[in-house]
Amino acid sequence: MLKTQGYVAHNADTPLVPFSFERREPLANDVQIEILYCGVCHSDIHQVRNEWGNASFPMVPGHEIIGKVTALGGAVTDFKIGETVGVGCLVDSCRTCPDCQDHLEQFCNAPTFTYNSEDQISGGNTYGGYSTQVVVDRHFVLHVSDKLDPAAAAPLLCAGITTYSPLKHWKIGKGHKVGIVGLGGLGHMGVKFARAMGAHVVLFTTSANKVEDAKRIGAHEVVISKDDEAMQQHRLSFDFILNTVAAAHNLDSFTELLKRDGTLCLVGVPDHPHPSPSVGNLIFKRRQIAGSLIGGIKETQEMLDFCAEHNIVSDIETIPMQQINEAYERMLKSDVKYRFVIDLASLKN
Amino acid sequence: MLKTQGYVAHNADTPLVPFSFERREPLANDVQIEILYCGVCHSDIHQVRNEWGNASFPMVPGHEIIGKVTALGGAVTDFKIGETVGVGCLVDSCRTCPDCQDHLEQFCNAPTFTYNSEDQISGGNTYGGYSTQVVVDRHFVLHVSDKLDPAAAAPLLCAGITTYSPLKHWKIGKGHKVGIVGLGGLGHMGVKFARAMGAHVVLFTTSANKVEDAKRIGAHEVVISKDDEAMQQHRLSFDFILNTVAAAHNLDSFTELLKRDGTLCLVGVPDHPHPSPSVGNLIFKRRQIAGSLIGGIKETQEMLDFCAEHNIVSDIETIPMQQINEAYERMLKSDVKYRFVIDLASLKN
Repeated sequence: MLKTQGYVAHNADTPLVPFSFERREPLANDVQIEILYCGVCHSDIHQVRNEWGNASFPMVPGHEIIGKVTALGGAVTDFKIGETVGVGCLVDSCRTCPDCQDHLEQFCNAPTFTYNSEDQISGGNTYGGYSTQVVVDRHFVLHVSDKLDPAAAAPLLCAGITTYSPLKHWKIGKGHKVGIVGLGGLGHMGVKFARAMGAHVVLFTTSANKVEDAKRIGAHEVVISKDDEAMQQHRLSFDFILNTVAAAHNLDSFTELLKRDGTLCLVGVPDHPHPSPSVGNLIFKRRQIAGSLIGGIKETQEMLDFCAEHNIVSDIETIPMQQINEAYERMLKSDVKYRFVIDLASLKN
Repeated sequence: MLKTQGYVAHNADTPLVPFSFERREPLANDVQIEILYCGVCHSDIHQVRNEWGNASFPMVPGHEIIGKVTALGGAVTDFKIGETVGVGCLVDSCRTCPDCQDHLEQFCNAPTFTYNSEDQISGGNTYGGYSTQVVVDRHFVLHVSDKLDPAAAAPLLCAGITTYSPLKHWKIGKGHKVGIVGLGGLGHMGVKFARAMGAHVVLFTTSANKVEDAKRIGAHEVVISKDDEAMQQHRLSFDFILNTVAAAHNLDSFTELLKRDGTLCLVGVPDHPHPSPSVGNLIFKRRQIAGSLIGGIKETQEMLDFCAEHNIVSDIETIPMQQINEAYERMLKSDVKYRFVIDLASLKN
């Protein structure tokens, strides 16, 4: 067994603290990874605080993992020792259902999440990336180009694929006008991807102080979504709007900006329901409200390759593991541009 | 000017009464039609009672019109005197916007509806099919096969195209499992079309006494939507669900029946909002909630041709014009199988 250091939540009410535990020795199809960096996703907070009601403790969060391969199972031929790799939200799935067969493991009804999930192989809970190493079946390990800064690449494994996947699924490209709602960990990635795909990108934010930064990141236009007049100027003009805001809000102000046959795609589940959306807004221009969930493993690799080709990474603030509890408090105040990434070197001395 | 007899609402609060008025003489592109039958749509009640807040009186309702051509403008070459024709919800549109160019006149921002609309050609209000004749630009007149019973064909012009169009837009065919919610004027047409397109059709109803009739009409299965256990047996199995029920209801019980990438399509605007739909239901299987509105003129012709090929008409109850007020009261109690059609011969003696 592999001695591993991490940070753990023992319950929903107390801060994360240091934790020593063991990972399995690599099985035939496993890749053993020394974790270098792990992004901090808002869903980490939801889960350690049991806000989704599914917490299983002890919990070691973290599903935006970048590391180096340190050992390989005997059957693994597609990875090399020393290679930079990534692990996202999933470490296993049933492999046989229609969703898995279609390379959409995120929709499998029996997935194993990277943490806070039942570990089908080793027993107990899966433990995530707030730790020094991890052992993962090769099917769920991604190749990461050395062209990319490894710390800034970590958030690609969740925030990246969550925004890339819907833009690809709805075939966004040149000639499209795309809206991104919210400039946070997800939204700033959405802006970068939509821009790189060739779309005209409009960022919607409630914060006037984010305008300049949104343009720096790649938005062609920025609209303050509280400004009704500014919103009205964009009526009936969008092919697609990716809404990254999970807090309950009025969706109608965005659906009415869509062209005929346009789609408003939600990627965040609100704690309280959104106000019921206008059915008239859907019917009178055949518009749609859709949802999207991270992405499959094949598409995650495609996204990472796209990032290497277009030099796309996340805007990050690196922290040592010991500052995770303060980082959570700052995230709750949206005080981060735009993703915290844990430097796991902080646990190795 | 052409002397015409009809039934009119003079205000939102009193019954419809007989009315004499004049239609324009046919212009170069006009088709003059003797109306034989006119279907009674639930939206007729909404509009004469000003429940949508857009009523303009005097109002002669009716947009499910079947008649015979009695005269033609000088430029009309594609219709013949004596031919059976139909007119639906629209009698004009701008002809130049992207929606009109794409043969989707129903989404034009400047449409002229068949009644309760500003008449851009003759001035005043447009008057609908509760009348002995109508004069309509040829672009908005449909050919109706003599294979079809003309009375039972009338509801195709609104109830028919409203259900046909989304089934075609979402490419329903063999191998698909399709749900139709509600067995009324729209729903019974949805069952017939989905069945004729080759889908496996499941009718959802709250009324146990509609089961046999739904099967007679073409449903392979009927599910009582109040029966949670019966509903759960269909979880994750539908490609597409067409929801014809306008009354506010829980949409989640239908979205959770959709497969990954499935669509719940709404064709009715509720008086009060539906309970806010679960965003999780959308995200966790990339499902969509969409809307659809009648259909374009080209697609309405395609639908009528499809009906002639597959021998599809509406199930109707024919009434004389003089019984319209009683018919409205029965419709409000869902006491009609499944569409009232006015026989305009009742106004011609």
